[in-house]
Amino acid sequence: MQMAHAIQTMQVRGAPLIGAAAAYGIALASLQASHDAHFEHSSKMLKASRPTAVNLAWAVDRMLDVLLPLPSEARQEAAWREAEKIADEDVAQCQAIGQHGLSLLKQHSQNKTLNIMTHCNAGWLATVDHGTALAPIYAAYDAGLDIHVWVSETRPRNQGASLTAWELGQHGVPHTIITDNAAGHLMPQGQVDMVIVGADRVTRVGDVCNKIGTYLKALAAQDNGIPFFAAVPSPTIDWGITATDIEIEARSAQEVTHMLGVDAHDQLQTVRIMPTGSTAFNPAFDVTPARLVTGIITEKGVFSPNQLKGLQHA
Amino acid sequence: MQMAHAIQTMQVRGAPLIGAAAAYGIALASLQASHDAHFEHSSKMLKASRPTAVNLAWAVDRMLDVLLPLPSEARQEAAWREAEKIADEDVAQCQAIGQHGLSLLKQHSQNKTLNIMTHCNAGWLATVDHGTALAPIYAAYDAGLDIHVWVSETRPRNQGASLTAWELGQHGVPHTIITDNAAGHLMPQGQVDMVIVGADRVTRVGDVCNKIGTYLKALAAQDNGIPFFAAVPSPTIDWGITATDIEIEARSAQEVTHMLGVDAHDQLQTVRIMPTGSTAFNPAFDVTPARLVTGIITEKGVFSPNQLKGLQHA
Repeated sequence: MQMAHAIQTMQVRGAPLIGAAAAYGIALASLQASHDAHFEHSSKMLKASRPTAVNLAWAVDRMLDVLLPLPSEARQEAAWREAEKIADEDVAQCQAIGQHGLSLLKQHSQNKTLNIMTHCNAGWLATVDHGTALAPIYAAYDAGLDIHVWVSETRPRNQGASLTAWELGQHGVPHTIITDNAAGHLMPQGQVDMVIVGADRVTRVGDVCNKIGTYLKALAAQDNGIPFFAAVPSPTIDWGITATDIEIEARSAQEVTHMLGVDAHDQLQTVRIMPTGSTAFNPAFDVTPARLVTGIITEKGVFSPNQLKGLQHA
Repeated sequence: MQMAHAIQTMQVRGAPLIGAAAAYGIALASLQASHDAHFEHSSKMLKASRPTAVNLAWAVDRMLDVLLPLPSEARQEAAWREAEKIADEDVAQCQAIGQHGLSLLKQHSQNKTLNIMTHCNAGWLATVDHGTALAPIYAAYDAGLDIHVWVSETRPRNQGASLTAWELGQHGVPHTIITDNAAGHLMPQGQVDMVIVGADRVTRVGDVCNKIGTYLKALAAQDNGIPFFAAVPSPTIDWGITATDIEIEARSAQEVTHMLGVDAHDQLQTVRIMPTGSTAFNPAFDVTPARLVTGIITEKGVFSPNQLKGLQHA
């Protein structure tokens, strides 16, 4: 199935966006057949494409919950309608995250540049629009706040250095790329006022599963008294899981051993950056325990990990 | 001066090795002239080539302390003799570090593979021989201990992924390369038994200034109850400085924006890995506060930060 392939190979990536994409994957499947077994098979393939982000399974389950009770002739139209609804809701949720995050940034903004650090890409390239972690940043920039973003490279796939830097550049937001390691110099030096990241899954107690490297930043933020926020639409909160049960995807070693870039002739080139005799291990996510998390920015407001359970039935 | 250039551009790197190289830089200078002003000028150029590692200034000062009291006709021969002495002492110190470290590793080794994480390169490519952080690892491997090394990539210059992985491979030591970010997944998973790094400067209270990324690993080690050691020859301890006074070298942004690797035709290629419109900041070191340091492995034994001052007059 093409959509499962696109998600697995990260042609489509970012927790909210793979949720919406998976919903459209079910809609695409409805063009082929509309019996239960076909939807169940497609659903299994989509869910297996990437294990860590909860939005994927959430969107697929929601599609099946809507479609399976319907008579089969009504399923195709309903599938496209529900996928569109999921995508539209994501846009609205991200917009609301931007507004709640903006209030937060205003609180932290004094009469000097507000330095925000982010990790990976949680902008409009990772969602249907606006982004999650970047939504407050775009809202703040548009509102005229004096902000600057430290963009953490995000090895091994460099989503920060490539996608986030490019997004921010397109929008005109002042930013500087750093290696993931550099967070540990900038934070003690007082160069970071807050950290905002996205997430692939948040537990009901507020543990944040996000791109590998997030936990190290959260530790440094806490050690230096810097607030640490995750920005997520509520479907990213998994009410039924604990931190230790989250499956951490291990991806290909080649993502570590090789690097894609542009050569002197403006051609894309993949180069090997390690000795051929050595192997690599590539876990794609880590879990930041709730004790290091200042708050979760959602479409319904900003919640400390302690307050999060109030959101479940809100 | 060619030696200052070689140190600045990192053709020669690693704190102990740039100490020995700078000593030979003074010896080379003695071939040109042997009056005070010439030595003082050469000394200034060498010291300015890289500001963070203390061994550089230490070796240059030691050379001048020996040479300047001598009549000028005796200086050339004395310069080569003293440089050789510094290099030989480094070999002996690293060998002793290996032996003290080996005892430590034996203590931590139970009836399973001992997983050691290191960062950057502190092996024989960074010293005159044996290495500092890697000396105990080589000694343990040679003694038949069951060890495995997690080699942290060390962005931006990838000294871990390239130099350390290559060194360990040459020696036959089992190892796996990881991104710097991956430490934050492996440590909570119980995959790391201890961390050993080198250092460019250690303060008298045991703060460790080392390659950028070290502090984040030390935080994660502490958060997960994993011992964290720095291995250094005693000239790396700077008895006259405090953590806040250490000058942190900022290197070229191009080290972050571009990456050197080997293409499909086995040719070296430099590729740009970031959008052209974005800039980067590249601090080369960070400081790990003594409270995160379990011990300093020196040629005179293993010292906790509290015990360190006993070493000053030992």
